[in-house]
Amino acid sequence: MINLFFDQALLPAGWARDVTVSVGADGAIAHVETGSTPVGDPGEGMRRCHGIALPGLGNLHSHAHQRALAGLAERSGPGRDSFWTWREAMYRFVARLDPEGLEAIAAALYADMLEAGYTAVAEFHYLHHGPDGTPYEDRAEMARRCHAAARTAGIGMTLLPVLYRHGDFGGAAPGEGQRRFVNDAEGFAAILEAVARDLADDPDAALGIAPHSLRAVDADLIEAGRAALDRLRPGEGAPIHIHVAEQRREVDACVAWSGRRPVEWLMEHAPVDARWCLIHATHLSEAETLGLAKSGAVAGLCPTTEANLGDGLFPAEAYTGAGGRWGVGSDSHVSIDPREELRWLEYGRRLAGHARTVLAGGPDRSTGRTLWEAACAGGAQACGRPIGAIAPGRRADIVVLDPEASLLAGRDGDAILDTFVFVGGPSPVREVFVGGRGVVESGRHRDRAAIDAALRRTLERLAA
Amino acid sequence: MINLFFDQALLPAGWARDVTVSVGADGAIAHVETGSTPVGDPGEGMRRCHGIALPGLGNLHSHAHQRALAGLAERSGPGRDSFWTWREAMYRFVARLDPEGLEAIAAALYADMLEAGYTAVAEFHYLHHGPDGTPYEDRAEMARRCHAAARTAGIGMTLLPVLYRHGDFGGAAPGEGQRRFVNDAEGFAAILEAVARDLADDPDAALGIAPHSLRAVDADLIEAGRAALDRLRPGEGAPIHIHVAEQRREVDACVAWSGRRPVEWLMEHAPVDARWCLIHATHLSEAETLGLAKSGAVAGLCPTTEANLGDGLFPAEAYTGAGGRWGVGSDSHVSIDPREELRWLEYGRRLAGHARTVLAGGPDRSTGRTLWEAACAGGAQACGRPIGAIAPGRRADIVVLDPEASLLAGRDGDAILDTFVFVGGPSPVREVFVGGRGVVESGRHRDRAAIDAALRRTLERLAA
Repeated sequence: MINLFFDQALLPAGWARDVTVSVGADGAIAHVETGSTPVGDPGEGMRRCHGIALPGLGNLHSHAHQRALAGLAERSGPGRDSFWTWREAMYRFVARLDPEGLEAIAAALYADMLEAGYTAVAEFHYLHHGPDGTPYEDRAEMARRCHAAARTAGIGMTLLPVLYRHGDFGGAAPGEGQRRFVNDAEGFAAILEAVARDLADDPDAALGIAPHSLRAVDADLIEAGRAALDRLRPGEGAPIHIHVAEQRREVDACVAWSGRRPVEWLMEHAPVDARWCLIHATHLSEAETLGLAKSGAVAGLCPTTEANLGDGLFPAEAYTGAGGRWGVGSDSHVSIDPREELRWLEYGRRLAGHARTVLAGGPDRSTGRTLWEAACAGGAQACGRPIGAIAPGRRADIVVLDPEASLLAGRDGDAILDTFVFVGGPSPVREVFVGGRGVVESGRHRDRAAIDAALRRTLERLAA
Repeated sequence: MINLFFDQALLPAGWARDVTVSVGADGAIAHVETGSTPVGDPGEGMRRCHGIALPGLGNLHSHAHQRALAGLAERSGPGRDSFWTWREAMYRFVARLDPEGLEAIAAALYADMLEAGYTAVAEFHYLHHGPDGTPYEDRAEMARRCHAAARTAGIGMTLLPVLYRHGDFGGAAPGEGQRRFVNDAEGFAAILEAVARDLADDPDAALGIAPHSLRAVDADLIEAGRAALDRLRPGEGAPIHIHVAEQRREVDACVAWSGRRPVEWLMEHAPVDARWCLIHATHLSEAETLGLAKSGAVAGLCPTTEANLGDGLFPAEAYTGAGGRWGVGSDSHVSIDPREELRWLEYGRRLAGHARTVLAGGPDRSTGRTLWEAACAGGAQACGRPIGAIAPGRRADIVVLDPEASLLAGRDGDAILDTFVFVGGPSPVREVFVGGRGVVESGRHRDRAAIDAALRRTLERLAA
């Protein structure tokens, strides 16, 4: 048992002072005591953190390898970059990426996430095979590299092996650029089983699946994937994530194929409930918005990526007004900063509606606190892990803000979170704990130098 | 003369390697040599910077004191039209703000700007008088504090004393909340003359004026302000900035008063040309868009503030397509990061048009480079100072990126700027020079500790 003592903390019941969080050997929170005094000798079961403790945020959508491409699809002129040329560039890069490279890129990415305040990530992992589409000898090689990177960085992980079969709506054959992603039922089951064994021993990890999109799977495949997952994790309702309605062209293609819009089709053909996370539920009709909100599923929003790719704006007021749950993901990793995701989710709605404090939580909490708490709850649900709150039974995943940061001087209560979320610039995140272990100190990942050196070697090798 | 040597630099003709920038004793660039070798002894007239040199960016719109309020307008609940709760907090704060407090807040803000890559600021300064509206004994006391803060931080400054007379369109009397802002003609002239004398000795500073808005001035006052400025700075075409069309309610009120939209009214009643900067030219008709583009004036865009306040989106494609000039400002300082301003200016248009690379410069430059270069040119024009390019005759205002930053590994040419602008997270700005003097080293302002300590003392004193 270790006791972490914080000057101030955001608990489920609200802000509290002089908070002792007792963490068991398993990394879960055993007790939380407020108005306490630090007990025990520093270094021997007691750690005094001068700072403000927030629940760590789960990043509900990541494609780790895309981090290496961030900023490389901004060409202009004739043949200027679009969503679809970006996808071509991504496919070309992917053709060279090997297991070691993926692991190095992912470890550096996860260290960046931790420094920014994400304590867990849902890795939507589709890069299964070798460059020519041949499976690695260990079919789960690439998935295992993602998990190894998470262990290296010390971030919590929900690993979502991707089920990918078709090249487009209606069961078209996959194209050459997609050959590293595609599995038949047996191949997918082999990956899932191997990963399930690995993760079983890791209290900071969980298993789910990700049918890639309505272009890549059909209703039978979704059902087969769910059944395979439930055989490995019976009774858990382990997470199912899917890309759903990112680009308008995709919505139009879905309507042309099925007569239904993507979310409408999915709600009709799959048992969408609280275990589901619909990534990029961007383009929703009013009926889809209400239906999704009522389903209990999480809308997986990725504001910086969705802006970079020109996707569109999610109808957040109508959705949250109907009780809809949501969280954020950094997706293509053009930005790794939960504060930027949250404020621009809110800002997008302000700009669309010429209003302020749109996603407001009510009289008892500010906009910044509303956004952080909702994203923590949605992130935890989408990750299928007991995170997102500083409370007994949850993982001790905690982000500590520096009260000496000049902008926080004189700030108290919700104004701390409003300043944290809405005021851009250098992050005041000073310490980060995952499962009670310190992974960020003085704003820097404990293994930053080694992780960055490995990344640099990888990028130079891949560029050569 | 000092020689600054850079591994790589963005010059007006494009990217160059092994660049020596020779800076005169006056802080202006004397020569630029490419393909050079470092000459002279380090420390004695030669400084070798391992890094990538970009022209520093001019921040064309700042209200320094608002930095202390950043993040304090996000309360929700009933009355979540939190403009009113924010106004109460702002009045309480402003009522206590004294000259020493303003200087401390401004110095810390300007240090933040320098670390982020802004090397100059246009300070739109309206907080002239004491809390009860009585002018200070030295009427220019508060303006001088802004300049003193700029000297402390070492940032270039264009000081724009604000001309503020009326409370609303049509010459309504100013309200109590505006009493610290208002001057008669003599009072304004006294401030302007005092500031003009101060700035005359500072090669890193320039003078302009800011008629506050069409609510606060009329055509005669604008003309009188211009004449007063031109008497002090004859033949220079010194800058004139004005808030113009930020909120839709403001546009409606202007039409109700005059039968004209704000930009339309201004173009008819003032000689809008290249010396003008129209701040928040957000709401433009097609005719206004083209007219403003043809005028040669700069559109002063503040994407993070305009998003925070729910103002709306500037029609950037149509405006730049017609050759319109623009720059960015951090305005209320909810964020101090030129990269966030630039990428979200572009992202706003991507989201509105479901497209990518919207503000693209053509086949010879990427989107990131287009944005940085355009904002540098517009910022220099709006500041009325020879900045914004690494070229002979310009000030030696230079931002140096860390080539060791992990994200920049393997990046070259325009991809450097695309990564810098579009990839969020910790800034790779390592060194910053203003007028040839180093003000940021290893990413940190040279006087950060002292400046932050003064800020903390001020915030604690004002909160007490």
